[in-house]
Amino acid sequence: MDSLNVAIVGASGLVGRTMLKVLEERNFPIKKLRLFGSNRSKGSVIHFKNENYSVETLEDDSFDGIDIALFSAGSDVSKIYAPKAAKAGAIAIDNSSCWRRDPNVPLVVPEVNKEAAFEHKGIIANPNCNVIPLVVAFKPLDENYVIKRVIVSTYQSISGAGNKGLTKLEDEINGIKNNDKHPIFSNAIFHPHEAGTDQTNEEIKLEFETRKIMGNENLKVAATCVRLPFFACHAEAAYLELEKSFEIEDIKHLLNSSQGIVINDDLANDDYPTPQNVAGFDQVFIGRIRRDTTVQNGLALWIVSDNIRKGAATNAVQIAELFIK
Amino acid sequence: MDSLNVAIVGASGLVGRTMLKVLEERNFPIKKLRLFGSNRSKGSVIHFKNENYSVETLEDDSFDGIDIALFSAGSDVSKIYAPKAAKAGAIAIDNSSCWRRDPNVPLVVPEVNKEAAFEHKGIIANPNCNVIPLVVAFKPLDENYVIKRVIVSTYQSISGAGNKGLTKLEDEINGIKNNDKHPIFSNAIFHPHEAGTDQTNEEIKLEFETRKIMGNENLKVAATCVRLPFFACHAEAAYLELEKSFEIEDIKHLLNSSQGIVINDDLANDDYPTPQNVAGFDQVFIGRIRRDTTVQNGLALWIVSDNIRKGAATNAVQIAELFIK
Repeated sequence: MDSLNVAIVGASGLVGRTMLKVLEERNFPIKKLRLFGSNRSKGSVIHFKNENYSVETLEDDSFDGIDIALFSAGSDVSKIYAPKAAKAGAIAIDNSSCWRRDPNVPLVVPEVNKEAAFEHKGIIANPNCNVIPLVVAFKPLDENYVIKRVIVSTYQSISGAGNKGLTKLEDEINGIKNNDKHPIFSNAIFHPHEAGTDQTNEEIKLEFETRKIMGNENLKVAATCVRLPFFACHAEAAYLELEKSFEIEDIKHLLNSSQGIVINDDLANDDYPTPQNVAGFDQVFIGRIRRDTTVQNGLALWIVSDNIRKGAATNAVQIAELFIK
Repeated sequence: MDSLNVAIVGASGLVGRTMLKVLEERNFPIKKLRLFGSNRSKGSVIHFKNENYSVETLEDDSFDGIDIALFSAGSDVSKIYAPKAAKAGAIAIDNSSCWRRDPNVPLVVPEVNKEAAFEHKGIIANPNCNVIPLVVAFKPLDENYVIKRVIVSTYQSISGAGNKGLTKLEDEINGIKNNDKHPIFSNAIFHPHEAGTDQTNEEIKLEFETRKIMGNENLKVAATCVRLPFFACHAEAAYLELEKSFEIEDIKHLLNSSQGIVINDDLANDDYPTPQNVAGFDQVFIGRIRRDTTVQNGLALWIVSDNIRKGAATNAVQIAELFIK
């Protein structure tokens, strides 16, 4: 197996550090590793596979000789440096939302549309952390029953806001005050407003990205996205309307045999996925698989996934694995 | 104004104590007050309007001379003692789920169906804490636009499980372990399974009670009910399909002018109801009022209400107020 030269941009962040963990766990074949971060992180030392790496700041020539550059340092950094990485011959796999809407940039979840990855022009976008578990669940259902409409209400970890979000929750638990308009402890809050719409930016992402990855711009998707006091994992209550009729047992078997999915669905024994029992895993967990009797061919699902792993770091590493020869 | 003899059964519980607070706040005309509780609570002293009351245990003659008996001591107690109260000539207003399905027992939210209260045969049921805010929001919409179908995903305070639930959350925050299968801290969990169905008992209640109070047994209601680490308040993401077309501004004006509703809907300024900013209030707060463009005449709402107050104690006291001469 050929080894690759890998760069991680945003290596000190919550997703960056998890990318390193996932690369190590999956024994990704790394020849050379370079870690990049902000001025604040410069010089800090990160341990990887029994070696110490010093965090560098990005320069114009930082990507010379790099094969894969994993970006998770926010849209501003990705906007400037992902094209530089691509120009230097690397494949930039970008976890920010910066490039996801660009029609020339594939938006990839390997279980769903890995073929799109090979059409890249130097940049591949890693989808929103809500969207990844949704489309992993939707793909086999769409192939077999055709999804017409989806309503999703999300239950999201504040870790979606990175270490800053986790610190906010910890501080509030410990009674340390902040000036934020809304606390997250013992609360439910929304993401920022998307100007010109009546939605949050997260809801706009969920609706657009689901359609793009499913390859169906007419797919009807409505979302309410909510941030909650979870340290880890996003959960989603999804109501689907399918084109074809189904037996609920067939749906369970189909999902159970689909890539990247674990079924945990025995309500009578209180067995179902939760943020606490799914944290740290790489799969998409599905429970509460039941008929929605209020519409023809209606199906309800409860989908839980670790937003920092499958929702971000693991999915990015899985994309990188597509390019191991 | 005539004063009434009032009994509270379950006076030491979370809802019972809030009933007392609400009776005092609303200056309910009380002639005589008797407080009842379990053997464990017997003899404990509760302060009400500058007087001390001792908690008694229930006897067969406890309701002699009582006009209004507010029950919040669980289904087992209500099953036995609500009929005894009724037989003694009192009106039993019962917060448990024990009598809600009985066709001879009205299920009442004063803003929605107060006329039903006067058809009581001695027992009036106080609805589930999720259902009360929903139907307060739905009533004006149904009258003006006719609701065909509703999908609700709930975000519920663990205070729905009473003081026991609150203690579980506090203990888990403080690192005190328990043997529960699922923690509630940093987690999302379901209510117990309703045998013979693929739903939780809370989901069954939400669907049935919404139909009963709205007086429309054909109303299509689908629910996913989720318990979260909130000390107070239930929030609900509701997707409605209406019969008639609407302008979103008309919906906002309608809800804003409807009884018991407060609109807080300015996402651009991060103004919306949350469990934290709604706790302690008696109204139903609605935000995120927007069109669901994935279906004809689709409407999305975010509904938040204090589950112990409007969802339980306040609604029960409002029912009692209907009987003040």
